[in-house]
Amino acid sequence: MIKSIEWVGGHVRYIDQTKLPSDEVYTKTSDYRDVAEAIRKLRIRGAPLIGIAAAYAVALAGMESRKLESSKFVNEITEAIDLLAATRPTAVNLFWALKRMKTVLSLNDNIEIVRTSLIDEAIKIHSEDIEMCKNIGENGSTLIPDNATILTHCNTGALATGGDGTAQSVITTAHKQGKRVNVYADETRPLLQGGRLTTWELMKNGIEVNLITDNVAAFLMQRNKITLAITGADRIAANGDTANKIGTYSIAVNAKYHDIPFYIAAPTSTIDPAIRSGSDIMIEERNIEEVTSIDGKRIAPDGVKVYSPAFDITPASLITAVITDRGVFYPPFDFSK
Amino acid sequence: MIKSIEWVGGHVRYIDQTKLPSDEVYTKTSDYRDVAEAIRKLRIRGAPLIGIAAAYAVALAGMESRKLESSKFVNEITEAIDLLAATRPTAVNLFWALKRMKTVLSLNDNIEIVRTSLIDEAIKIHSEDIEMCKNIGENGSTLIPDNATILTHCNTGALATGGDGTAQSVITTAHKQGKRVNVYADETRPLLQGGRLTTWELMKNGIEVNLITDNVAAFLMQRNKITLAITGADRIAANGDTANKIGTYSIAVNAKYHDIPFYIAAPTSTIDPAIRSGSDIMIEERNIEEVTSIDGKRIAPDGVKVYSPAFDITPASLITAVITDRGVFYPPFDFSK
Repeated sequence: MIKSIEWVGGHVRYIDQTKLPSDEVYTKTSDYRDVAEAIRKLRIRGAPLIGIAAAYAVALAGMESRKLESSKFVNEITEAIDLLAATRPTAVNLFWALKRMKTVLSLNDNIEIVRTSLIDEAIKIHSEDIEMCKNIGENGSTLIPDNATILTHCNTGALATGGDGTAQSVITTAHKQGKRVNVYADETRPLLQGGRLTTWELMKNGIEVNLITDNVAAFLMQRNKITLAITGADRIAANGDTANKIGTYSIAVNAKYHDIPFYIAAPTSTIDPAIRSGSDIMIEERNIEEVTSIDGKRIAPDGVKVYSPAFDITPASLITAVITDRGVFYPPFDFSK
Repeated sequence: MIKSIEWVGGHVRYIDQTKLPSDEVYTKTSDYRDVAEAIRKLRIRGAPLIGIAAAYAVALAGMESRKLESSKFVNEITEAIDLLAATRPTAVNLFWALKRMKTVLSLNDNIEIVRTSLIDEAIKIHSEDIEMCKNIGENGSTLIPDNATILTHCNTGALATGGDGTAQSVITTAHKQGKRVNVYADETRPLLQGGRLTTWELMKNGIEVNLITDNVAAFLMQRNKITLAITGADRIAANGDTANKIGTYSIAVNAKYHDIPFYIAAPTSTIDPAIRSGSDIMIEERNIEEVTSIDGKRIAPDGVKVYSPAFDITPASLITAVITDRGVFYPPFDFSK
């Protein structure tokens, strides 16, 4: 089993995802700033995993602080939380995890107890995520027929979460249940998480996978090669509108056009009841060098203008069902039930 | 003006498009096999340009042949034609140009006259292409409103043709007429012709351009940022079904979904009346390394399976109009008129 992140002897140990699939490099740190930098640089990525990493980072900040007065200790940890909150603007799990850590901070005046509680809470967030991945997999696998050919986008596996993944957990669970599944993995430009990570994970799990460029997905649908499409989510609004990796929206439009089911799989923590619809979700723009070069190789003219949104919004009307750890939701979506 | 190919003193001189946009390298050869290899390796690419290059290559074969007997000379040139025909299976212009060269071969028994006629015919094919590009630009520009934001895919400019391009000629002609146009250029994976070539050409021509990954196009349509989409074509069936660079079909589906005009611009030679519909068009599969590595950098796991069709088929029902050098055709398409 792939362990994307671990709490080991007061350190955080994580796999550097920017080095995959060529090199399987694990980094160990006791500095929360390193974790923040790793999130910013996408060494740690995937909405659920970002939340877990940020929680561990707050625990590290607690261990690091030398303040003896409770209010000063709280100020220092709050600064760390603010730094972590500023790493990636779209992933709701990040804010959700940091909020939980902040609550712990306010429960006791004894610094030693708070320090331990921060560690406990981070480990708890991680354990809950493992359990959530398992439940998403089990709930979603009921929607996967035998002999399914599944289109997926970006990475939603062990590398994106603390456990077995979200959308990918659905696929691996169906596979473990003995269903024959094969996957077309979109490479997912610009950062190629599908080509680099999803293929790597599925191959490790012994699941049949074909890598395609993002341009191929619609063509496969046209030729009746896709049974269903499934992706993760970075943020889900109360009405079901879903922010996910750029390119998801095009898959959803094409799935609708070809009458193919389009599923979102995500932990409940991804649903943000405070956001009414997709139009209220802020879209992060990524650094243009992710588009103009690959591994330092220039692939566009110097000085070219680039527009590179990290996410797009798929309206609820294009989503067949949202698979969560709490069950499968169908439109019209009401996640409060 | 960019000259993608030239006949200079009994040689063919072409710009090596695989070196762009970093390096502007021109290659000169008198060996038709070099031209065949350049077509196969996409150093020379774009359906119309491939036809011109193949014609010049046959002229080179004529100059090279030392046979003194007409039938032997014809056999040798026919071998060269067969080699050239085997370079790329989808581009109809290639076969169209080679057929014209073959006809020249049969018109006279005097080798010296045939040799000269082959050169004349190749130059004529090139001149006609320049004229066709001009006419496509003029015919298509009537469909471009002022202040248009145009989505395009792959490269359809001077680098794809002998003249100013097809879809891109429409854009540059509208620009020359004083219309304000700005372009979103899909990078066009796997070979990134949009990112490498289209941006480079448009910037040289002083036209506003933003590079996007292929995943961004649908998102821009959703946000009402696209006035119209326009692409070239590699082959058009009698009913209007169009083979073009992989990814075109997804744009067409999205354009339909968002009620945005979707235009094809291509020379008449791209229309193949012998092909009744898109289902009769053969789809070339490209080398998987185009997907698994970029400029020698590995971007997918070793041993991963890849599915990489070079083209897709956009059904006529998704095409607003086909712009040719002979005029603008609307559905139901009847190109015989």
